Amino acid sequence: MNGGRFYVISAPSGTGKTTIVKRVLGEFPEMKFSVSYTTRPPRPGEKDGVEYHFVSRHVFQKMLRAGAFAEWTKLLGHYYGTSKTFLDECLAEDIDVILDIDTRGAEQIHKNYDEGVFIFILPPEIGDLKERLTRRGSESQEVIDLRIRNASKEIEKVENYDYVVINDQINGAVERIKAIMIAEKCKRERVLHHFRKTVKS
Amino acid sequence: MNGGRFYVISAPSGTGKTTIVKRVLGEFPEMKFSVSYTTRPPRPGEKDGVEYHFVSRHVFQKMLRAGAFAEWTKLLGHYYGTSKTFLDECLAEDIDVILDIDTRGAEQIHKNYDEGVFIFILPPEIGDLKERLTRRGSESQEVIDLRIRNASKEIEKVENYDYVVINDQINGAVERIKAIMIAEKCKRERVLHHFRKTVKS
Repeated sequence: MNGGRFYVISAPSGTGKTTIVKRVLGEFPEMKFSVSYTTRPPRPGEKDGVEYHFVSRHVFQKMLRAGAFAEWTKLLGHYYGTSKTFLDECLAEDIDVILDIDTRGAEQIHKNYDEGVFIFILPPEIGDLKERLTRRGSESQEVIDLRIRNASKEIEKVENYDYVVINDQINGAVERIKAIMIAEKCKRERVLHHFRKTVKS
Repeated sequence: MNGGRFYVISAPSGTGKTTIVKRVLGEFPEMKFSVSYTTRPPRPGEKDGVEYHFVSRHVFQKMLRAGAFAEWTKLLGHYYGTSKTFLDECLAEDIDVILDIDTRGAEQIHKNYDEGVFIFILPPEIGDLKERLTRRGSESQEVIDLRIRNASKEIEKVENYDYVVINDQINGAVERIKAIMIAEKCKRERVLHHFRKTVKS
Protein backbone atom coordinates (compact mmCIF):
# COMPACT_ATOMS: atom_id res chain seq x y z
CA MET A 1 0.00 0.00 0.00
CA ASN A 2 1.32 3.42 -0.86
CA GLY A 3 0.99 6.83 0.78
CA GLY A 4 -2.23 8.15 -0.76
CA ARG A 5 -5.74 7.26 0.35
CA PHE A 6 -9.13 7.14 -1.35
CA TYR A 7 -11.70 8.56 1.03
CA VAL A 8 -14.98 7.07 -0.13
CA ILE A 9 -17.84 9.09 1.33
CA SER A 10 -21.39 7.77 1.04
CA ALA A 11 -24.68 8.78 2.64
CA PRO A 12 -28.43 8.39 2.22
CA SER A 13 -29.73 11.31 0.12
CA GLY A 14 -30.53 14.48 2.01
CA THR A 15 -27.86 13.92 4.65
CA GLY A 16 -25.82 17.01 3.69
CA LYS A 17 -23.01 15.03 2.09
CA THR A 18 -22.24 17.51 -0.72
CA THR A 19 -21.85 20.42 1.71
CA ILE A 20 -19.68 18.36 4.04
CA VAL A 21 -17.41 17.18 1.20
CA LYS A 22 -16.93 20.78 -0.02
CA ARG A 23 -16.03 21.95 3.49
CA VAL A 24 -13.57 19.10 4.01
CA LEU A 25 -11.89 19.76 0.64
CA GLY A 26 -11.48 23.40 1.70
CA GLU A 27 -9.60 22.25 4.79
CA PHE A 28 -7.14 20.02 2.90
CA PRO A 29 -5.91 21.99 -0.14
CA GLU A 30 -3.57 19.15 -1.18
CA MET A 31 -6.51 16.72 -1.42
CA LYS A 32 -8.29 16.09 -4.73
CA PHE A 33 -11.91 15.42 -5.55
CA SER A 34 -12.67 12.58 -7.94
CA VAL A 35 -15.00 14.10 -10.54
CA SER A 36 -17.28 11.28 -11.73
CA TYR A 37 -18.39 10.74 -15.30
CA THR A 38 -22.17 10.70 -15.74
CA THR A 39 -24.82 10.49 -18.45
CA ARG A 40 -27.24 12.49 -16.29
CA PRO A 41 -27.87 15.98 -17.71
CA PRO A 42 -26.35 18.85 -15.70
CA ARG A 43 -28.60 20.56 -13.17
CA PRO A 44 -28.75 24.36 -13.08
CA GLY A 45 -25.43 25.71 -11.80
CA GLU A 46 -23.49 22.48 -12.37
CA LYS A 47 -20.37 22.90 -14.51
CA ASP A 48 -18.77 20.25 -16.71
CA GLY A 49 -15.55 19.05 -15.05
CA VAL A 50 -16.46 20.45 -11.63
CA GLU A 51 -19.38 18.47 -10.17
CA TYR A 52 -19.26 15.85 -12.97
CA HIS A 53 -17.82 15.16 -16.38
CA PHE A 54 -21.04 15.18 -18.39
CA VAL A 55 -20.86 12.68 -21.26
CA SER A 56 -23.28 11.01 -23.65
CA ARG A 57 -24.48 7.47 -23.14
CA HIS A 58 -22.44 6.47 -26.19
CA VAL A 59 -19.20 7.88 -24.76
CA PHE A 60 -19.87 6.36 -21.33
CA GLN A 61 -20.43 2.90 -22.76
CA LYS A 62 -17.30 3.16 -24.90
CA MET A 63 -15.30 4.08 -21.77
CA LEU A 64 -16.96 1.24 -19.89
CA ARG A 65 -15.95 -1.30 -22.54
CA ALA A 66 -12.41 0.09 -22.54
CA GLY A 67 -12.15 -0.55 -18.77
CA ALA A 68 -11.87 3.15 -17.97
CA PHE A 69 -13.83 2.96 -14.72
CA ALA A 70 -12.61 1.98 -11.27
CA GLU A 71 -16.26 1.67 -10.27
CA TRP A 72 -19.52 2.41 -12.03
CA THR A 73 -23.18 2.24 -11.26
CA LYS A 74 -26.57 2.89 -12.86
CA LEU A 75 -29.03 4.91 -10.86
CA LEU A 76 -32.53 6.00 -11.98
CA GLY A 77 -31.61 5.37 -15.61
CA HIS A 78 -28.32 7.27 -15.57
CA TYR A 79 -24.76 5.98 -15.49
CA TYR A 80 -22.07 7.16 -13.07
CA GLY A 81 -18.41 6.14 -13.12
CA THR A 82 -15.04 6.94 -11.50
CA SER A 83 -12.00 7.34 -13.76
CA LYS A 84 -9.42 4.61 -13.23
CA THR A 85 -6.66 6.73 -14.79
CA PHE A 86 -7.35 9.58 -12.37
CA LEU A 87 -7.18 7.28 -9.33
CA ASP A 88 -4.01 5.56 -10.56
CA GLU A 89 -2.29 8.89 -11.15
CA CYS A 90 -3.17 10.05 -7.62
CA LEU A 91 -1.85 6.76 -6.22
CA ALA A 92 1.44 7.18 -8.08
CA GLU A 93 1.87 10.64 -6.56
CA ASP A 94 0.68 9.76 -3.00
CA ILE A 95 -2.25 12.16 -3.35
CA ASP A 96 -5.37 11.77 -1.18
CA VAL A 97 -8.67 11.70 -3.03
CA ILE A 98 -12.31 12.09 -1.98
CA LEU A 99 -14.83 9.95 -3.85
CA ASP A 100 -18.48 10.87 -3.46
CA ILE A 101 -20.08 7.59 -4.56
CA ASP A 102 -22.87 5.26 -3.46
CA THR A 103 -22.64 1.97 -1.56
CA ARG A 104 -22.48 -0.14 -4.73
CA GLY A 105 -19.61 1.95 -6.09
CA ALA A 106 -17.91 1.73 -2.69
CA GLU A 107 -18.07 -2.06 -2.88
CA GLN A 108 -16.15 -2.03 -6.17
CA ILE A 109 -13.46 0.30 -4.81
CA HIS A 110 -13.25 -1.94 -1.74
CA LYS A 111 -12.60 -4.94 -3.97
CA ASN A 112 -10.15 -3.29 -6.38
CA TYR A 113 -8.00 -1.11 -4.11
CA ASP A 114 -6.27 -1.44 -0.73
CA GLU A 115 -6.15 2.33 -0.35
CA GLY A 116 -9.85 2.91 0.34
CA VAL A 117 -11.00 4.51 3.59
CA PHE A 118 -14.77 4.21 3.79
CA ILE A 119 -16.88 6.80 5.57
CA PHE A 120 -20.65 6.62 5.85
CA ILE A 121 -22.56 9.73 6.89
CA LEU A 122 -25.84 9.17 8.69
CA PRO A 123 -28.59 11.63 9.55
CA PRO A 124 -28.99 12.53 13.24
CA GLU A 125 -32.20 10.52 13.50
CA ILE A 126 -30.06 7.42 13.94
CA GLY A 127 -27.99 8.78 16.78
CA ASP A 128 -30.68 10.14 19.01
CA LEU A 129 -33.66 8.25 17.65
CA LYS A 130 -34.72 6.68 20.94
CA GLU A 131 -34.34 9.94 22.82
CA ARG A 132 -36.29 11.94 20.24
CA LEU A 133 -39.08 9.39 20.05
CA THR A 134 -39.40 9.21 23.80
CA ARG A 135 -39.24 12.96 24.26
CA ARG A 136 -41.91 13.50 21.63
CA GLY A 137 -44.20 11.16 23.58
CA SER A 138 -46.92 11.12 20.91
CA GLU A 139 -45.85 7.91 19.17
CA SER A 140 -47.28 4.53 20.02
CA GLN A 141 -44.89 1.78 21.08
CA GLU A 142 -45.61 0.12 17.75
CA VAL A 143 -44.48 3.15 15.74
CA ILE A 144 -41.39 3.57 17.92
CA ASP A 145 -40.46 -0.08 17.34
CA LEU A 146 -40.96 0.25 13.60
CA ARG A 147 -38.78 3.34 13.41
CA ILE A 148 -36.04 1.70 15.42
CA ARG A 149 -36.25 -1.38 13.19
CA ASN A 150 -35.91 0.81 10.09
CA ALA A 151 -32.99 2.73 11.55
CA SER A 152 -31.35 -0.54 12.55
CA LYS A 153 -31.65 -1.77 8.98
CA GLU A 154 -30.09 1.41 7.66
CA ILE A 155 -27.19 1.31 10.09
CA GLU A 156 -26.46 -2.36 9.38
CA LYS A 157 -26.06 -1.46 5.68
CA VAL A 158 -22.72 0.19 6.47
CA GLU A 159 -20.96 -3.17 6.73
CA ASN A 160 -18.17 -2.31 4.27
CA TYR A 161 -17.44 1.07 5.83
CA ASP A 162 -14.63 1.83 8.26
CA TYR A 163 -16.22 4.88 9.86
CA VAL A 164 -19.72 6.14 10.55
CA VAL A 165 -20.18 9.88 11.04
CA ILE A 166 -23.48 11.16 12.39
CA ASN A 167 -24.31 14.53 10.85
CA ASP A 168 -26.04 15.96 13.92
CA GLN A 169 -24.45 19.31 13.19
CA ILE A 170 -22.54 20.21 10.05
CA ASN A 171 -19.49 21.65 11.88
CA GLY A 172 -19.24 18.59 14.08
CA ALA A 173 -19.48 16.24 11.11
CA VAL A 174 -16.78 18.17 9.21
CA GLU A 175 -14.52 18.10 12.30
CA ARG A 176 -14.98 14.36 12.69
CA ILE A 177 -14.14 13.67 9.04
CA LYS A 178 -11.08 15.93 9.35
CA ALA A 179 -10.04 13.94 12.43
CA ILE A 180 -10.43 10.67 10.48
CA MET A 181 -8.16 12.01 7.74
CA ILE A 182 -5.51 13.24 10.20
CA ALA A 183 -5.66 9.90 12.02
CA GLU A 184 -5.28 8.00 8.75
CA LYS A 185 -2.13 10.01 8.02
CA CYS A 186 -0.77 8.77 11.38
CA LYS A 187 -1.45 5.09 10.58
CA ARG A 188 1.79 3.19 11.09
CA GLU A 189 2.08 1.89 7.53
CA ARG A 190 1.62 5.36 6.12
CA VAL A 191 4.25 6.97 8.35
CA LEU A 192 6.66 4.13 7.54
CA HIS A 193 5.99 4.57 3.82
CA HIS A 194 6.73 8.27 4.10
CA PHE A 195 9.87 7.60 6.13
CA ARG A 196 11.20 5.00 3.70
CA LYS A 197 10.50 7.24 0.75
CA THR A 198 12.28 10.16 2.46
CA VAL A 199 15.46 8.33 3.39
CA LYS A 200 15.72 6.75 -0.06
CA SER A 201 15.29 9.93 -2.07
CA MET B 1 -15.74 -5.53 21.41
CA ASN B 2 -17.44 -2.92 23.55
CA GLY B 3 -17.55 0.87 23.47
CA GLY B 4 -14.45 1.83 25.48
CA ARG B 5 -10.89 1.89 24.19
CA PHE B 6 -7.46 1.50 25.80
CA TYR B 7 -5.14 4.06 24.26
CA VAL B 8 -1.69 2.65 24.80
CA ILE B 9 0.87 5.41 24.35
CA SER B 10 4.58 4.52 24.16
CA ALA B 11 7.69 6.47 23.20
CA PRO B 12 11.47 6.40 23.52
CA SER B 13 12.43 8.35 26.65
CA GLY B 14 12.82 12.09 26.23
CA THR B 15 10.16 12.32 23.53
CA GLY B 16 7.79 14.50 25.58
CA LYS B 17 5.27 11.72 26.17
CA THR B 18 4.29 12.75 29.73
CA THR B 19 3.49 16.32 28.67
CA ILE B 20 1.53 15.13 25.65
CA VAL B 21 -0.50 12.64 27.72
CA LYS B 22 -1.39 15.35 30.27
CA ARG B 23 -2.51 17.72 27.52
CA VAL B 24 -4.62 15.04 25.83
CA LEU B 25 -6.29 14.09 29.14
CA GLY B 26 -7.15 17.77 29.63
CA GLU B 27 -8.97 17.74 26.28
CA PHE B 28 -11.10 14.67 27.06
CA PRO B 29 -12.47 15.07 30.60
CA GLU B 30 -14.41 11.80 30.36
CA MET B 31 -11.22 9.85 29.66
CA LYS B 32 -9.28 8.15 32.48
CA PHE B 33 -5.57 7.66 33.05
CA SER B 34 -4.42 4.22 34.11
CA VAL B 35 -2.20 4.83 37.14
CA SER B 36 0.43 2.09 37.13
CA TYR B 37 1.72 0.29 40.22
CA THR B 38 5.47 0.54 40.70
CA THR B 39 8.21 -0.41 43.14
CA ARG B 40 10.30 2.57 42.02
CA PRO B 41 10.56 5.25 44.76
CA PRO B 42 8.65 8.47 44.04
CA ARG B 43 10.60 11.33 42.45
CA PRO B 44 10.28 14.83 43.92
CA GLY B 45 6.80 16.14 43.21
CA GLU B 46 5.26 12.76 42.39
CA LYS B 47 2.19 11.89 44.44
CA ASP B 48 0.99 8.42 45.34
CA GLY B 49 -2.10 7.59 43.29
CA VAL B 50 -1.48 10.35 40.73
CA GLU B 51 1.60 9.49 38.67
CA TYR B 52 1.88 5.99 40.16
CA HIS B 53 0.64 3.80 42.97
CA PHE B 54 3.90 3.40 44.88
CA VAL B 55 4.12 -0.02 46.50
CA SER B 56 6.78 -2.20 48.07
CA ARG B 57 8.37 -5.05 46.20
CA HIS B 58 6.56 -7.43 48.54
CA VAL B 59 3.15 -5.99 47.73
CA PHE B 60 3.89 -5.91 44.00
CA GLN B 61 4.90 -9.56 43.94
CA LYS B 62 1.82 -10.55 45.92
CA MET B 63 -0.36 -8.71 43.39
CA LEU B 64 1.57 -10.32 40.55
CA ARG B 65 0.95 -13.82 41.93
CA ALA B 66 -2.74 -13.00 42.42
CA GLY B 67 -3.02 -12.10 38.72
CA ALA B 68 -3.78 -8.46 39.47
CA PHE B 69 -1.90 -7.07 36.45
CA ALA B 70 -3.10 -6.74 32.88
CA GLU B 71 0.54 -6.17 31.94
CA TRP B 72 3.73 -5.80 33.89
CA THR B 73 7.38 -5.20 33.21
CA LYS B 74 10.70 -4.85 34.99
CA LEU B 75 12.85 -1.89 34.04
CA LEU B 76 16.21 -0.93 35.57
CA GLY B 77 15.47 -3.08 38.62
CA HIS B 78 11.97 -1.73 39.28
CA TYR B 79 8.60 -3.31 38.61
CA TYR B 80 5.73 -1.59 36.80
CA GLY B 81 2.21 -2.98 36.35
CA THR B 82 -1.28 -2.03 35.15
CA SER B 83 -4.27 -2.93 37.29
CA LYS B 84 -6.52 -5.52 35.63
CA THR B 85 -9.47 -4.55 37.87
CA PHE B 86 -9.20 -0.92 36.82
CA LEU B 87 -9.20 -1.80 33.11
CA ASP B 88 -12.08 -4.24 33.47
CA GLU B 89 -14.18 -1.67 35.32
CA CYS B 90 -13.54 0.90 32.57
CA LEU B 91 -14.50 -1.67 29.93
CA ALA B 92 -17.75 -2.43 31.72
CA GLU B 93 -18.66 1.26 31.71
CA ASP B 94 -17.45 2.05 28.13
CA ILE B 95 -14.83 4.43 29.48
CA ASP B 96 -11.75 5.32 27.41
CA VAL B 97 -8.40 4.92 29.16
CA ILE B 98 -4.88 6.13 28.45
CA LEU B 99 -2.07 3.74 29.36
CA ASP B 100 1.44 5.17 29.46
CA ILE B 101 3.46 1.95 29.17
CA ASP B 102 6.47 0.61 27.29
CA THR B 103 6.58 -1.64 24.22
CA ARG B 104 6.77 -4.84 26.27
CA GLY B 105 3.70 -3.84 28.27
CA ALA B 106 1.96 -2.87 25.04
CA GLU B 107 2.56 -6.37 23.70
CA GLN B 108 0.76 -7.90 26.68
CA ILE B 109 -2.23 -5.57 26.31
CA HIS B 110 -2.27 -6.38 22.60
CA LYS B 111 -2.48 -10.08 23.43
CA ASN B 112 -5.05 -9.85 26.22
CA TYR B 113 -7.51 -7.23 24.97
CA ASP B 114 -9.28 -6.37 21.71
CA GLU B 115 -9.87 -2.81 22.87
CA GLY B 116 -6.29 -1.56 22.57
CA VAL B 117 -5.44 1.34 20.27
CA PHE B 118 -1.65 1.58 20.06
CA ILE B 119 0.07 4.91 19.53
CA PHE B 120 3.84 5.33 19.29
CA ILE B 121 5.35 8.79 19.64
CA LEU B 122 8.63 9.39 17.85
CA PRO B 123 11.05 12.30 18.14
CA PRO B 124 11.24 14.65 15.13
CA GLU B 125 14.67 13.30 14.18
CA ILE B 126 12.92 10.40 12.48
CA GLY B 127 10.63 12.54 10.35
CA ASP B 128 13.15 14.98 8.95
CA LEU B 129 16.34 13.03 9.54
CA LYS B 130 17.53 13.03 5.95
CA GLU B 131 16.79 16.71 5.53
CA ARG B 132 18.56 17.70 8.75
CA LEU B 133 21.60 15.58 7.99
CA THR B 134 21.88 16.97 4.48
CA ARG B 135 21.31 20.55 5.60
CA ARG B 136 23.97 20.26 8.28
CA GLY B 137 26.47 19.18 5.61
CA SER B 138 29.22 18.37 8.08
CA GLU B 139 28.52 14.63 8.34
CA SER B 140 30.29 12.07 6.22
CA GLN B 141 28.18 9.77 4.08
CA GLU B 142 29.12 6.96 6.45
CA VAL B 143 27.73 8.78 9.49
CA ILE B 144 24.58 9.70 7.59
CA ASP B 145 24.05 6.07 6.60
CA LEU B 146 24.58 4.90 10.17
CA ARG B 147 22.09 7.40 11.55
CA ILE B 148 19.51 6.44 8.97
CA ARG B 149 20.06 2.76 9.76
CA ASN B 150 19.58 3.44 13.47
CA ALA B 151 16.44 5.49 12.85
CA SER B 152 15.12 2.75 10.56
CA LYS B 153 15.63 0.20 13.33
CA GLU B 154 13.77 2.39 15.81
CA ILE B 155 10.85 2.97 13.46
CA GLU B 156 10.56 -0.73 12.60
CA LYS B 157 10.14 -1.47 16.33
CA VAL B 158 6.64 -0.02 16.18
CA GLU B 159 5.28 -3.17 14.55
CA ASN B 160 2.47 -3.71 17.06
CA TYR B 161 1.32 -0.11 16.98
CA ASP B 162 -1.63 1.23 15.01
CA TYR B 163 -0.46 4.82 14.81
CA VAL B 164 2.84 6.67 14.77
CA VAL B 165 2.85 10.31 15.85
CA ILE B 166 5.95 12.41 15.21
CA ASN B 167 6.41 14.95 18.00
CA ASP B 168 7.87 17.68 15.81
CA GLN B 169 5.91 20.24 17.80
CA ILE B 170 3.98 19.56 20.98
CA ASN B 171 0.74 21.24 19.81
CA GLY B 172 0.79 19.32 16.56
CA ALA B 173 1.39 16.02 18.34
CA VAL B 174 -1.48 16.68 20.78
CA GLU B 175 -3.79 17.60 17.88
CA ARG B 176 -2.91 14.41 16.03
CA ILE B 177 -3.55 12.22 19.07
CA LYS B 178 -6.86 14.02 19.62
CA ALA B 179 -7.73 13.33 15.96
CA ILE B 180 -6.91 9.64 16.44
CA MET B 181 -9.26 9.47 19.44
CA ILE B 182 -12.08 11.26 17.62
CA ALA B 183 -11.60 8.98 14.59
CA GLU B 184 -11.66 5.89 16.82
CA LYS B 185 -15.01 7.05 18.20
CA CYS B 186 -16.30 7.11 14.61
CA LYS B 187 -15.17 3.54 13.86
CA ARG B 188 -18.14 1.64 12.54
CA GLU B 189 -18.21 -1.01 15.27
CA ARG B 190 -18.12 1.62 17.96
CA VAL B 191 -20.98 3.66 16.52
CA LEU B 192 -23.00 0.47 16.06
CA HIS B 193 -22.30 -0.55 19.65
CA HIS B 194 -23.48 2.84 20.88
CA PHE B 195 -26.57 2.65 18.67
CA ARG B 196 -27.53 -0.85 19.81
CA LYS B 197 -27.02 0.09 23.43
CA THR B 198 -29.15 3.22 23.03
CA VAL B 199 -32.13 1.56 21.36
CA LYS B 200 -32.13 -1.28 23.85
CA SER B 201 -32.00 0.83 27.00
